[in-house]
Amino acid sequence: MAAKINTAPPRGTRDVLPDEVELRDAATQRILAVYRSYGFRRIETPALESLALLAGSDGGENEKLIFKVLKRGEDLEAALREGSRELADLGLRFDLTVPLARYYAENHAQLPDPLKAIQIGPVWRAERPQKGRYRQFTQCDIDVLGAVSPLVEIELILATCEALRAAFGLPELAVRINDRRILSRIARHCGFAEREEASFFIAFDKLDKVGAEGVLAELREAGRDARTIERFEALLPVLQKGDLSLDALRTALGAGDEAAFGWLATIIEAAGGALPAGARLQFDPTLVRGMGYYTGTIFEVSMPGFSGSVAGGGRYDRMVGKLLGRDVPACGFSIGFERLVAILGERGGAGAPGAASTGDQARRIALVVEDGGDVRAALAAARTLRAAGDLVSLELRRKNVGKQLDDLTRHGFDAHATLDASGVPVVKPLTRRERA
Amino acid sequence: MAAKINTAPPRGTRDVLPDEVELRDAATQRILAVYRSYGFRRIETPALESLALLAGSDGGENEKLIFKVLKRGEDLEAALREGSRELADLGLRFDLTVPLARYYAENHAQLPDPLKAIQIGPVWRAERPQKGRYRQFTQCDIDVLGAVSPLVEIELILATCEALRAAFGLPELAVRINDRRILSRIARHCGFAEREEASFFIAFDKLDKVGAEGVLAELREAGRDARTIERFEALLPVLQKGDLSLDALRTALGAGDEAAFGWLATIIEAAGGALPAGARLQFDPTLVRGMGYYTGTIFEVSMPGFSGSVAGGGRYDRMVGKLLGRDVPACGFSIGFERLVAILGERGGAGAPGAASTGDQARRIALVVEDGGDVRAALAAARTLRAAGDLVSLELRRKNVGKQLDDLTRHGFDAHATLDASGVPVVKPLTRRERA
Repeated sequence: MAAKINTAPPRGTRDVLPDEVELRDAATQRILAVYRSYGFRRIETPALESLALLAGSDGGENEKLIFKVLKRGEDLEAALREGSRELADLGLRFDLTVPLARYYAENHAQLPDPLKAIQIGPVWRAERPQKGRYRQFTQCDIDVLGAVSPLVEIELILATCEALRAAFGLPELAVRINDRRILSRIARHCGFAEREEASFFIAFDKLDKVGAEGVLAELREAGRDARTIERFEALLPVLQKGDLSLDALRTALGAGDEAAFGWLATIIEAAGGALPAGARLQFDPTLVRGMGYYTGTIFEVSMPGFSGSVAGGGRYDRMVGKLLGRDVPACGFSIGFERLVAILGERGGAGAPGAASTGDQARRIALVVEDGGDVRAALAAARTLRAAGDLVSLELRRKNVGKQLDDLTRHGFDAHATLDASGVPVVKPLTRRERA
Repeated sequence: MAAKINTAPPRGTRDVLPDEVELRDAATQRILAVYRSYGFRRIETPALESLALLAGSDGGENEKLIFKVLKRGEDLEAALREGSRELADLGLRFDLTVPLARYYAENHAQLPDPLKAIQIGPVWRAERPQKGRYRQFTQCDIDVLGAVSPLVEIELILATCEALRAAFGLPELAVRINDRRILSRIARHCGFAEREEASFFIAFDKLDKVGAEGVLAELREAGRDARTIERFEALLPVLQKGDLSLDALRTALGAGDEAAFGWLATIIEAAGGALPAGARLQFDPTLVRGMGYYTGTIFEVSMPGFSGSVAGGGRYDRMVGKLLGRDVPACGFSIGFERLVAILGERGGAGAPGAASTGDQARRIALVVEDGGDVRAALAAARTLRAAGDLVSLELRRKNVGKQLDDLTRHGFDAHATLDASGVPVVKPLTRRERA
C-alpha cells in the first residue's frame, strides 16, 4: 500500500462537511421557496462555456480569472504542433449572468415571456486564495428577461428581501436604490461629457471608501475640467444627504429625464410600501455599483452591523442583445450566498432565531444494534420510526458505548434507541451538542 | 450591435428548461428525503481535483475522458518555455467515488464514524457525444465508509429501492446480488489461477451480451487451460439457473469461503424480507459489474421492461487505503439519475402516477395586471394568495389576451387572476396543457 499522499482539495477550493451542507441546503430551499412563490422558475446551464463567449462578455476583471479547459485530441495536437497559444477552447463560468444571456438567446422561443429565472449554482474564479474567498463558490440570482416595467424591479426587490429574511433570519434590511440614467443626469448637470461618464462613475463609486476629497482628487488627476469638478463638489452635499428624496434631487438638477425619475418613483412607492417589517427602501444617488453593463435601475441591500452589501443587482437592457442581435430588457438581483452562509455559521448556525434550520424538525435517531443481532426486528423498528417522521440510522454497537454516544451527540443525533425484549424501540434523548 | 453569434451550449452539454429542472429537483428532493430518513447526510467536494489524484485513481477508461484545466500564470509560462506536455494541473471530476475517497482520507477525523454520505452532483467526461449521453451529467450516490457489517449492504439496498420508488414511481424492481469473493471461488473451483481472475471476470461479465458460447470463445482465445474452461462450461448451467439459491451453489462448489456465503445469506434474508412491495432480491452468481475496485458484495437494480440497470454498486474495501495508508471498509450504491429522469420525462413527467411531481401541490397563478395600474392593490392581492400557499407571478396584461392565456397555460400556469373593483383577486383555472 502506498504511503499517505496529499489529500487536500485543490488550492482555493474546499470540502464541505455535513453540518455545513445542511445549513447551505436549508438556506437554498428557503430561498427557492420564496422565489417560486413569486413565480420564478429554476433554470440550469452547463458549468463549461466556450472561451469565446466568456472572454468576450464585458466581464471585466473576471475574464482574467477564467479556469481554461485544455483542448482535447486532434485539436490539442494541432495547437501544440503549430506552437499556438490557443491551447484551450472551453472555460468554467465565472458568473451566472453571462450564461443566462446565452441561454436566453439560444432558448427564448421555448421559454416563458417574460422569463423569470432562478439560478443557484457554482461559479469558478482563479483568484488568489484569501480568507473567506474561494475559487469555487455559489451564486444565487433571480432575473427577469423580456419585460419593460417597474413592476419587474418591484418584484425583484420584494422577493429578494423576503428570501433574505426566510433563509438567513435577517430582520433588518436596508435597500438602497438608484438609476444609472439619474447618475448620467448628474454627470451631465455637472458638465461631464458622455465619454467621461464611465470614469466619473468609477471615481464616484469610491465615495464610501475614499470620501468626497478622494473622489474629487481622482477627478482632478484624471484631468477633468475644473468648473465641472466645482459644480460636482457643490452638488455633493445634496447627494450625500442620507434621506434625500427623489423630488428634492429633481428640483436640484432641474427638468429632464422625467422617465427615469418617474420609473424610480413608482418603484420606491410600491416596493417601499410592501416591504416586510424591518426592511426599508431608500433612494441613494451615490449608489453606483461596479458593473459596466447596467443601463437603468440599480439596487443593493445591506444589513445594519455588517459592512458591504448582502445582495445587489440592476437593469442590464443591452447584454442579451450582443448575443441575440436584438435588445431584450433584463433586470436581476443576486444574493451574496457565501457571505450570508458564513454569517449564519458564525451566529451559531441552525440555532440562530429565524435562520435556516438544518432541514425539517425530524428527530435524528441512532438505532443502536448488536452486530449479528436480530436484524429483522431492527429494520422493522426503524421502519416504524421513519413512518412517524424520524430520521433513523442503524448504528452498530461499539465496545465503548459511552464514547459512541458522545460521538453520536457530536455528529448531530438527537436521540439513540435500542430494542426492548419484544423488539419495540426505546428512544432516549442525547444532550444536544453546542454548535461552534 | 454585433450579428447573432453561436449561442449553443458547448458540444455534448445542454441547457435545461424550467419544466425539466423542476422534474429533476423534485426527484432529487424525494431521493434526499429517503436517504436522510436512513441517516445519510449530504457532503460536497469541489468540481476540480488535482490531475495527479484523478489520473492515478484506477478509474479505467474514465481517466482518458478527463477535462483538464490549463495551468495558470507562471506555472503555465514555465511549462510552455520548457516545451512540457504537462500543461494542466487540475481536472473536472469524472465520478463521485474518487473525490469521496479523497474527502474521507482528508477529513475523517471530523466525520462521523461510520460516514453515511449522500452525494448528488455533476461530473464531467469528454466522451464522444451521442444520444442520451452528455459530457456533464448528474450522479447520485450513497456510500458507507468505516463499517464492516452486512447491515451496511442491507441499508444501502433498502434505501436505494425506497428512493427509486419515491422519486420515480418504480413499483417493480429486481435487485440482483452477488459477491466478488464468490466469483473468485467459482474461478478457483474451475481452475483459473489468481492472476487470471481479472480477465475471467471481464469475459464472464459479457454473458448477458454474448451468451455462454461467446464467453467460452473469449476464454479460449485468451489461451486459458482447456480443462479449466471445460469445468467452467460444466458449471455454467448451474450459474445460469434463474433462481439458484446460495445453498445450492455452495453445494455445487464444495466447502470453502464460508464467510462470503454467510455474509450474502444475511443480506438476502434481511433485505429480501424488508423490501418494499413490488421489489424482489435475487442471488445471481453471473453478476460481475465492471469496476476493478470491488472487493465483496456487488448489486444491481433493474426494472422490468427496461434494459440495463437503473442502479448499481458494491463494496470497495481497498480504495480509501491507497490515499490514507490504511484500509477503510466502504460500500456504495449509485442511482442512474440521468437515465431515470429521461424515463420519467418519456412516461409523461410529473403526470405519471407515483412519479416525482413538480414540487409541491401549490397552484401556479398568473396575476395579470395593467402596466400603470394599481400596483399596491396587485401586490397586496399577491401577498394574500401566497400566504394561502399559492405561487403567484405578476404578469403584465398583453394586447392579445387570448394569446397570453395560451402562453401562460403552455408554460405551466394552473390559473390566472385579475382584481375586481374592490381589489380582490378573481382566480380562474387555465386548462392544463398536455405535457409532451
